[in-house]
Amino acid sequence: MTRPIDGPPPPTALEAIAARRTIRRFDPDRPVPDDDLRSLLALATLAPSAFNLQPWRFVVVRDLRNRRRLRACTFGEARITEAPVVLIVLGYLEPDRLDLDRVLDRQLDLGAIPPDLARRFRAEVPRLWARGDDRATRATRPAIHAAATLMIAASAIGLGTALLEEFDPDQVRRAFGIPDDHAIAALLALGHPADRPPFPGRFPLDHTCYAEHFGQPWPGDDEDR
Amino acid sequence: MTRPIDGPPPPTALEAIAARRTIRRFDPDRPVPDDDLRSLLALATLAPSAFNLQPWRFVVVRDLRNRRRLRACTFGEARITEAPVVLIVLGYLEPDRLDLDRVLDRQLDLGAIPPDLARRFRAEVPRLWARGDDRATRATRPAIHAAATLMIAASAIGLGTALLEEFDPDQVRRAFGIPDDHAIAALLALGHPADRPPFPGRFPLDHTCYAEHFGQPWPGDDEDR
Repeated sequence: MTRPIDGPPPPTALEAIAARRTIRRFDPDRPVPDDDLRSLLALATLAPSAFNLQPWRFVVVRDLRNRRRLRACTFGEARITEAPVVLIVLGYLEPDRLDLDRVLDRQLDLGAIPPDLARRFRAEVPRLWARGDDRATRATRPAIHAAATLMIAASAIGLGTALLEEFDPDQVRRAFGIPDDHAIAALLALGHPADRPPFPGRFPLDHTCYAEHFGQPWPGDDEDR
Repeated sequence: MTRPIDGPPPPTALEAIAARRTIRRFDPDRPVPDDDLRSLLALATLAPSAFNLQPWRFVVVRDLRNRRRLRACTFGEARITEAPVVLIVLGYLEPDRLDLDRVLDRQLDLGAIPPDLARRFRAEVPRLWARGDDRATRATRPAIHAAATLMIAASAIGLGTALLEEFDPDQVRRAFGIPDDHAIAALLALGHPADRPPFPGRFPLDHTCYAEHFGQPWPGDDEDR
């Protein structure tokens, strides 16, 4: 990714996580370079997924007319036309049917899986993937994981993001040809921030964490507070 | 977080994302220091969430007897007893009812939201949050976002993680007292890796990305390939 040679050092992971903000205003006049977009998408796909099935998909919307159409599927979300790139983040519901063989062949090529385990996965993953949660939830989880990864990477190279969850999924589906075997996980606006939003605060950990059992205060007594 | 003063420089965000692997074997004899665990949980909660409602919750399971009980809720997942820490990652389904006022009060204190917008959110968010997707999906998305953030941060400080999605949710619910108004998003094993798993490969971007419309090859013609 492009970065001035005499610029500040790239942020550490912890700095990039802490610096990320949900952007409220994007600069519509500063495009996202193709190289950066490609690198960010590649980093997003380094997220983990069950059986490495990688069921995330991204519709990359840059054309202003298309962003206007996408904005019309939300409740007047201005960031969709302000941000030069908006990703429609999808989760593919049936990777066990169409992608499993290719995923396993690649892992065998890379020596990343022993042949007997690959054979077992080839036979059993379709049943395992269909078990438990519904397919939409199974596909949405890794799609959000990939989006989260992209957002931290964007923060690290000085780009801003906003994950938008308020839209009419049926309208998006019709306008962008999303088939029923893909869940729409979120919209992700990407661009240069026009300002730096203030930190909105977070609950202390004793509100969100429990020790050993739901409802039990964290940290527990055996830990150094 | 503790780090030797003369150690290597901390990784950049992009390095931490690229270095993360789903750990196959944890070292059961190397505990996760309390300080590191607390820092990682705090970083996890820096993930974004709709209306900043922060509906993630974490049951921190460290006691070996409890990890054995949790393992019994999976299909014999050895990493749950190998890794010194396992988080039960939850999504709270009703933050709009019980957490909204506190979230908005804090934002007002921090000057992070104008009073008129806070008033509007107080009145409208319960309706907005209930609209569209079901509550379990709404709560699962930010819970996974927080888990993804924690996993990248863990990679940055040399700890390993594995997001485990194969378990019996009803059994976990009973064993750890998880009430029905919380979705179980995943289990997250955390510890020191016992080895470095090989890279299992990823699809090229032309498999997972589309230009402007579903099914349309990416990158589009107007882009530098």
